[in-house]
Parts: sequence; structure tokens; C-alpha cells
Amino acid sequence: MKVLVIGGDGYCGWATSLYLSSRGHDVTIADNLVRRAWDREHGLDSLVPIASLRRRIDEWTRVTGRTIRMDETDVTDYDALCRAVRTAAPDAVVHFGQQRSAPFSMIDREHAVRTHLNNTVGNMNVLWALQEHAPHAHLVKLGTMGEYGTPNIDVEEGFITIEHNGRSDRLPFPKQPGSFYHLTKVSDSDQIFFACRVWGLRATDLNQGVVYGTHTEQTALSPALANRYDYDHIFGTVINRFCVQAALGHPLTVYGRGGQTRSFLDIRDTVRCVEIALEHPAQEGEYRVFNQFTEMFAVEQLAERVRHVAQSLGLPCEITHVANPRVERESHYYNCVNTNLRSLGLEPTPLSDETIAGLITLAHEHRERVDLRLIPPRVEWRPAAEGPAHGTIAVA
Amino acid sequence: MKVLVIGGDGYCGWATSLYLSSRGHDVTIADNLVRRAWDREHGLDSLVPIASLRRRIDEWTRVTGRTIRMDETDVTDYDALCRAVRTAAPDAVVHFGQQRSAPFSMIDREHAVRTHLNNTVGNMNVLWALQEHAPHAHLVKLGTMGEYGTPNIDVEEGFITIEHNGRSDRLPFPKQPGSFYHLTKVSDSDQIFFACRVWGLRATDLNQGVVYGTHTEQTALSPALANRYDYDHIFGTVINRFCVQAALGHPLTVYGRGGQTRSFLDIRDTVRCVEIALEHPAQEGEYRVFNQFTEMFAVEQLAERVRHVAQSLGLPCEITHVANPRVERESHYYNCVNTNLRSLGLEPTPLSDETIAGLITLAHEHRERVDLRLIPPRVEWRPAAEGPAHGTIAVA
Repeated sequence: MKVLVIGGDGYCGWATSLYLSSRGHDVTIADNLVRRAWDREHGLDSLVPIASLRRRIDEWTRVTGRTIRMDETDVTDYDALCRAVRTAAPDAVVHFGQQRSAPFSMIDREHAVRTHLNNTVGNMNVLWALQEHAPHAHLVKLGTMGEYGTPNIDVEEGFITIEHNGRSDRLPFPKQPGSFYHLTKVSDSDQIFFACRVWGLRATDLNQGVVYGTHTEQTALSPALANRYDYDHIFGTVINRFCVQAALGHPLTVYGRGGQTRSFLDIRDTVRCVEIALEHPAQEGEYRVFNQFTEMFAVEQLAERVRHVAQSLGLPCEITHVANPRVERESHYYNCVNTNLRSLGLEPTPLSDETIAGLITLAHEHRERVDLRLIPPRVEWRPAAEGPAHGTIAVA
Repeated sequence: MKVLVIGGDGYCGWATSLYLSSRGHDVTIADNLVRRAWDREHGLDSLVPIASLRRRIDEWTRVTGRTIRMDETDVTDYDALCRAVRTAAPDAVVHFGQQRSAPFSMIDREHAVRTHLNNTVGNMNVLWALQEHAPHAHLVKLGTMGEYGTPNIDVEEGFITIEHNGRSDRLPFPKQPGSFYHLTKVSDSDQIFFACRVWGLRATDLNQGVVYGTHTEQTALSPALANRYDYDHIFGTVINRFCVQAALGHPLTVYGRGGQTRSFLDIRDTVRCVEIALEHPAQEGEYRVFNQFTEMFAVEQLAERVRHVAQSLGLPCEITHVANPRVERESHYYNCVNTNLRSLGLEPTPLSDETIAGLITLAHEHRERVDLRLIPPRVEWRPAAEGPAHGTIAVA
């Protein structure tokens, strides 16, 4: 299958591109490399060094004999995107090409708008480019479980049947996004659903949980194929960040009480979920949503898991609670459905002590590259004047 | 009350600005006059000539002794918007400053993105500007009943209590917007709700139906105060458009079968609804939604009403069905709640034969200004290659 992976140089995109290539698909990566520019702009870097996209792709060919095409395209440049789509003539487009950090989107107005423009105008461009140049291609779009927020009812997969005043309809599941980043994903979902209804496009919206891990079978083949490992307060996802903190002897920083519960999955399941979506495409005109996660954890529970593993590795490890920079419920009901992908063959990789130990060990190997100043949260959801002071808080 | 009216030169904005001024409020209009530029760009014009904003405002002062300030500000220019907010120091901001035509947003990708940027980035800027410079001001934002689409259940006002698997929550009402324009309004609503939750802003989202009429008590005071009267296929709302067609002896063009049912209100109720929202502001941190309409009609039913009145005026009048350029249900359940505004004092002005006769008569007075080529729909929701040919279709 010819697959165009937009954003194939990023954390999930790179791992997915290699996996799809290893499975025999004809992969083209379209990426404007802006994620690397954001790192430089904010003084951040992946803990594990990552090679340039050109070097990565060359190494992939050297190691496996397979080729991946590279197209340095910006999704917000419509003409360039159309050229990329025409050149790739894809059976499917996997769209990862978005700014994916909630804190980044909350830094200030400029970052909120930049996130919005990159994500939402990019998404509109993808829809129009498909409509014009590849109307039968299957769009696989990365959304997020964060679109739903934390409602007091079970979270279904994209739609819910509502009975009201004696009538009934299957309607989009209500969304309560918690940052300007999450707002862009909700807007994307609405646009994609519209494009399927009106233009007959076919799309799968993968509402992904928080991803952890760095290695896949493919990225582990060579250091030049290594994936990102973010530990900073902007791009570091929580399990990766805790493991780096544990490796460095830094207390695990739980935001607020830690009762915030979210959906999670291993990056090795991310790549498999995308493949499952591609293998079972949506029908023409169909917009469907798969909740892409394997387990639900509270943040506090994850901190305990990481502490336990760190101590078993002989590393002293503390958990500290810091003032929550976000505005979110810290104690709430949370139960999400994820039957679609499992019914199509996903075999979940549960979070294991071995995975945690591997992340801690990897971080320990690269410990000289850590800048501890990048770990404490510095982006407040509330304006500075009204926000809580940073620092350790007492938790009952 | 000091009120900043963003988009105060437009169809609803102008009528509202005069009404609020007449009621003693201290009104500043912020408008970049882009609506007039869009007319020129597409070869359109209001059927009734409208004076420049400067001239309109001077005339208002001459006729009433009241002053309205004018600030030629573009909401997408953040620094200019912040200056306007600081200068006006408003108790309330009424935000009409958006591209409001569904067909405009569907012309092509460029118009879709332009609508998105104007509306959604503008909305983000308004939220950030309020948070920075007027965090206690009450935001009154114009949304649209079209955000809801046509679900098979009753449409509540913004939120609905959902019972699911033995649990319950009050959640945002599911949205099914039907154009890129409507998509921007849904995105705005999500953003405003977020800003209220996170920043404690106070906001009222007025989900307005289709507005008809041109005169209010204030715009009728002088020809130089006249309001827009759009009859073209891009900006002409359905009742106004039918009345112009009737006045010109042009068949009333019903799109498709005409069973499409929508919410409507008289522009004299629009201005009163805004006043009611201002008089009863949302609380700090509160996001509330008022469904702003008074009656529901099917398009076919409106055509019959207009034909009846035209014939009573001695004008021959036919109804014709043309291929529907939109993708929408032409026969569906539709029942929307609108108790919030009525419970706060709105006394609806039902659609009367006198109102219809007034619109037909006004159009007849200006009939030499009509360009009949601007009436038939030319913007297709589906790409041209797949869309139906234009022309009269047989309807069973």
C-alpha cells in the first residue's frame, strides 16, 4: 500500500513510518521538520540523540534494504501539500503533522494561535488536497483521548446514542477539550466528519491516549534510527518524564493531587493501531473514531509504579506534588471504551515493569544530556497574576 | 454601560449598535469594514444603498444627539484589538465580527481558510484580549443555530443532560455543523467555554437563527442609517431573498424539496436579545448559551408565505425548486428550545404578512439596483465534477 505519512519525523510518526515500511508498505514521509525547530526555540532536546531525517532514512535503507521517500513539505503550504499528494498518489494518508503539546499551546496567545494555524489550517489543507487529488485515499488522522475531557459518563468511541424526550439519535460524543491544543483536535474531528459527509471522503480518527516508550523493533536496529525521548515540561509525556526523573535522582513531579486519570498506550501499540486502521479502511463517506489506548491510569498510580521499579534498580526515588499548572479535575470518574481496535486484532502491550526499567536505564545511559531546569512546569493554564506559585505543595 | 461592538458595521451589528445607543449605552464600534470589501470582491451590493460607517455614525449623532465611537480595527490584528479594548474599557463586548455566510466559506479552499482565520483566530484574539485587558467584561458572542445541525432529538440550549450506563452528566450539546462557516462557530463555542472554565471569563453564546427584516426603529430614522438588504446567493438570507425575488417577478428559488426546517427571528428581536443578554450578564466563569430565535419554518413554507403576500400586493409570483447546492437533509425532525431569552423578557415578533409586505415593497422601490445574475446559487457544497447541474428540477 502507498502510504503518505505527514509528520513522519516526529515521535509517533517516525516509529510508525519505520513499522509500515518494515511491513512492506511504500512509505513517503512529508514533514517540514518544525518539531526540531520548536526544540531549538525553547532550548529543548530529545534525551536520546536523534539523527537528521535524511540520515535516519539513509540508515533505514542501509540496515534493511527498504526505501522511504522524504518530502520536506509544510501542511500549511497548500500548493506544496498538493504536490506531495500528487507525487505520492497514496492509498492512505496518515496525518501526524501537528503541534502535539498542550503546554506549548498555553504558553501565550502567539503559541495558541500558532498551534491553531498549524493544526487546523493544516487539517483543512489535508482535506481539500484529498478531495482534489486523492478522493479515494483513506485518511488516518491522529486525534487524542483528551478531546473528550473527563465526563461523568463512559466515553464511547466518537459517537453516542442519546435518548431524549422520547426520541433517539446517534450523535457525536460531547467534547470538553482542556487546552488550546486539545481544542484544535476537536475542530479537526468536526472538519473531518463534515468532509466525509459532504465530499464522501473516508477517514479514521484515532483518538490516541498518552504514548510512552521510545523503542520499537525497528528504531532499536541502529542508534541512527533512535526515536525521540522527551523529558521536558513542554513535550515530555508523563511516563517518559517520570522515568527520566527517576534515572536522574530527581523527584517524580506529580501535578496536583495526581488523581487525574488518563488513557495510555505503548508506542509499539501505536504503530500497530495505525496498521490495523490501514488494513481495515473506512468506507467511502464513512467517518469513524477508534479510541486508541490500552490502559487507564491515574498519574499518582504511575508515579508509584515508576518509584517501585526505580527502587528495584537500586535508585533512590521520591514522589513530590507540585502545584498543578493545568486547570483540570484531580479526582473524577473516568472510563473509556476501546473495543474497536481490539475487535480488529490489536493485542495490547500492558505497561510492564520491564518497559519502565528499560526507559529508566535508557535515561541513565544518557544522563549527562539532561538539563534539570527543563523539568519543572513553567506554563500556567491561568494567567500568571492569578495562578498558584510554583513549588512543592502539601497534599493531604 | 460601555459596550464594544465588534463588527458593528454589518447587518446585525449596525442595527444592534444603534439600538444599544438609543437605549443609552456608550457604544464603540470596532470594525475593519471587510464585509464591504467582500461585496466588491464578489460583485455584490446591498439592495438598499448603505452609507459609509463614518457617514452613518455622523447621521446618528445629527438625528439623535447621541454619539457612537468608531475604531477601524481588525480582530485578526491582536495588537490593534488590544488597543481597542483598552480604549473602550468595556463592561461588555458584543462580538459580531465574523464572516457569516455558509456559501462564502464553501466557494473554495481559500475562502474556507479565510473564513476560518477571520472567525476563529479573531475569536481567540478576543478571548486573549479580554483575559489580558478586560477580564471582568461580559462577552456576548454571536453563534448560530446551524451549529446543531438537524439531530433527531430536541435541540437544547448549549448543554444536555445525558444518562448513560447508569451514570449522568450535563455535557455540551452535540454539534453537526453543515459548512466550513458553521464549523468556525462550533470551534468558537468550544474556545469560549474553555476560556470561561480556565480563565474565569464570563460569556453568553447567542446561537442565532436566520435573521430577516432590515428596518429597526433606529435604522428607519434616516436613509443614511439604512441597514443592509442582501439578496444574492452568498449573503442573502432566505426570507429577504424571497422577498426581493417576489418584488422583481423572479421565481422564488427553493433549494431542493424545501423541507429543510430552520430557526428564524426578526432583526428587531435580534437587537432586543442582545440587550437582554447584556442586562442579565453571565457570572464570572460562566459560559451559557441562549438559542436566539422565535419561530421555526420549513423553506417551502416560507416560499408559500411570501407568494401569498406578493399575490395580495398584485405581484405575480411563482415558486421554483432548483437543485440544492448544499448537502443537507431536506426532510427531517426539527425542534429547538428557546426558553432562556423568553424567560428573561423577550417578547417575540412573529413573522407577519406586514413584515413580508414591507420587505417586498422596499425591494420594489430599489428594483433598478437588482442584478438578477446574483440570485441563482453558484457555490456547490460538493466539488463541481460530482455536483448536480444547476437548473430547475422536478419535485414530486
